[in-house]
Amino acid sequence: MPNSGAHNSVGLVSPCRVRFETAFQLANGSVLAEHELVYETYGELNAAGDNAVLICHALSGTHHAAGFYADDGERAGWWDLAIGPGKPIDTRRLFVVCSNNIGGCDGSTGPNTLNPETGKPWGAKFPQPQVQDWVRSQKLLAEYLGISRWAAVIGGSLGGMQALQWAIDYPEWVEHCVALAAAPKLTAQNIAFNEIARHAILSDPDWCDGDYLSRDTIPSRGVALARMVGHLTYMSADGMSDRFGRELREGSFTPEAESEWVFQVESYLRHQGTRFSTQFDANTYVLMTRALDLFDLAVGNHGDLKAAVDKAIADFLVLSFSSDWRFPPHRSIEIRDALMAAGKPVTYANIETDNGHDGFLLPNQTYEALLTQWMQRVGPA
Amino acid sequence: MPNSGAHNSVGLVSPCRVRFETAFQLANGSVLAEHELVYETYGELNAAGDNAVLICHALSGTHHAAGFYADDGERAGWWDLAIGPGKPIDTRRLFVVCSNNIGGCDGSTGPNTLNPETGKPWGAKFPQPQVQDWVRSQKLLAEYLGISRWAAVIGGSLGGMQALQWAIDYPEWVEHCVALAAAPKLTAQNIAFNEIARHAILSDPDWCDGDYLSRDTIPSRGVALARMVGHLTYMSADGMSDRFGRELREGSFTPEAESEWVFQVESYLRHQGTRFSTQFDANTYVLMTRALDLFDLAVGNHGDLKAAVDKAIADFLVLSFSSDWRFPPHRSIEIRDALMAAGKPVTYANIETDNGHDGFLLPNQTYEALLTQWMQRVGPA
Repeated sequence: MPNSGAHNSVGLVSPCRVRFETAFQLANGSVLAEHELVYETYGELNAAGDNAVLICHALSGTHHAAGFYADDGERAGWWDLAIGPGKPIDTRRLFVVCSNNIGGCDGSTGPNTLNPETGKPWGAKFPQPQVQDWVRSQKLLAEYLGISRWAAVIGGSLGGMQALQWAIDYPEWVEHCVALAAAPKLTAQNIAFNEIARHAILSDPDWCDGDYLSRDTIPSRGVALARMVGHLTYMSADGMSDRFGRELREGSFTPEAESEWVFQVESYLRHQGTRFSTQFDANTYVLMTRALDLFDLAVGNHGDLKAAVDKAIADFLVLSFSSDWRFPPHRSIEIRDALMAAGKPVTYANIETDNGHDGFLLPNQTYEALLTQWMQRVGPA
Repeated sequence: MPNSGAHNSVGLVSPCRVRFETAFQLANGSVLAEHELVYETYGELNAAGDNAVLICHALSGTHHAAGFYADDGERAGWWDLAIGPGKPIDTRRLFVVCSNNIGGCDGSTGPNTLNPETGKPWGAKFPQPQVQDWVRSQKLLAEYLGISRWAAVIGGSLGGMQALQWAIDYPEWVEHCVALAAAPKLTAQNIAFNEIARHAILSDPDWCDGDYLSRDTIPSRGVALARMVGHLTYMSADGMSDRFGRELREGSFTPEAESEWVFQVESYLRHQGTRFSTQFDANTYVLMTRALDLFDLAVGNHGDLKAAVDKAIADFLVLSFSSDWRFPPHRSIEIRDALMAAGKPVTYANIETDNGHDGFLLPNQTYEALLTQWMQRVGPA
């Protein structure tokens, strides 16, 4: 029995698809002769077209941000917490759009779709997209949907970076911008974690130089490991201690049970990794982590973040999460300070939580109340 | 040309070996019918036998703590910084002993030595040692060397835990105890990092259930990945930013050079991982990380750390390193507080450094001065 009738849910949803047949040049110079985007919408676009909100997904996110599918009634979209009637992003008055990024693996043109030139999956030959490419392709989607300006562009983590990029690349298009658990660019440590994840995938013999699909295999061990590394960086040390402690999955520390000595946290991570490896494309994981590494909001301004954000005309909300050690609060403060220095309207808060980087996805009264209240200013009164 | 004549060096050294033919029962109930320890000594044991200092190595350490080998004059022992004439652990007046732990891969009985029952390498069948086993085997070594009490037992990280275990298990044997960058037990996050490292090794097809030696292969990709994960946790985020920034190894971010887009930090980690994978045994890595996970100073006292340290009669030095996020300062403070609560003499300091967990191995004026000064109290006046 689907939960589609659950309180405050947008209910049953289904993805839409659009094909752009005009050549699309990526920032790295590659050209996609055509490309498709898969997306979902919740709520209704009003006649004035001034109530559209764009949600940008994070590394492993998809276009399925809210509601339920008819054939998978148990699992809601990844941000069902925030999107729905009466929720912070209120679909009773806002028209919400979320698309799978180019290079993704959930239906938009990417490594697991067919390369029209060869008739085979792109695989590792898919060109490296960057955040600004996603922004440009989403602008095509907006125009296709009859939207000429976003009341807000909103995202967390990589999605938050994308929201910021939107505000800079198309200032007139972005009235409000929400960046959650983001950073203006990655640190060497951030890049190192991504590199380890990629290295895990590339060292899997089933990787086959990225051509695994045509060999009828997947580098599932590598992807599982990559996800374990990623997942570990999304949780806080305190959150993990509270949740798992040093408890064994089962059994006791008696010598007889030695082969059973598996800590709960190990069992949890293995499960997360294995599950993910059956769902997510390895080439996409490599591309997405690389897009993260390459992201630098100020790259066009010689590293001057204030100059970079100077073009924006949006009203900004920047939120960090106290126990996030992937993009800690001081990274959001860098964004806040650059916006303030440039004289932009910005609201900043640091949410106290043990949820780590995942904080932007998980229930938290203060976070939800703050987001709800701030979102009142978005869209028609 | 060996550096063996370098200023303050103990000079050329060579390892010694001792075989214990009495059955040795491990904490997990397994019995080694016989076992060997490889060790090095620096300085001279005095007639009173009251100037002996034991150095306990960390996860991937060895018995080669100081000086140079005749056939490898370039690379000094892993703690040459601290051990030598005129150095903090002054070999002009102290007799320094360092042994490779049981289960290690540098000559002591371990997975890569022969199982006398089968005549083949132990491999994954080598029993799981724990920290208290290493302490008991080092006591055999001490007795063999004619030592009846350590003037000090000293170690960092896993070696620091071992030093603390010594002070508890054989109070009369330990006059001074130095625990650097240690913790009373691991957190769920610590265990998770170790689990990912093990999982990397166990997912390598060349792992062969740990029986790779008899198949004439090694799971080098898995070990390299494991080391990359470990190495990353030894460095601080700030230290990595200072050292690597977001610089590319070579080339620029132009589209033409895309295939060259390798950040320096990636290149460094890959190099570290690959080098380590040719030097360190995979089974030992699995055993050592597992010994870390299982370590719990208070396990015999129902988690009461104060009660656990109450047996000790040593004078303690506990040092943490400000940017260590593997075993952060607050973990050392737990140890300090338990010692203080139990009325033990303890000196504690937090060393300001960007060197992360590796801080105990790297040059730092305050650290070296403090260790030098505190060590004055160790050994005969």
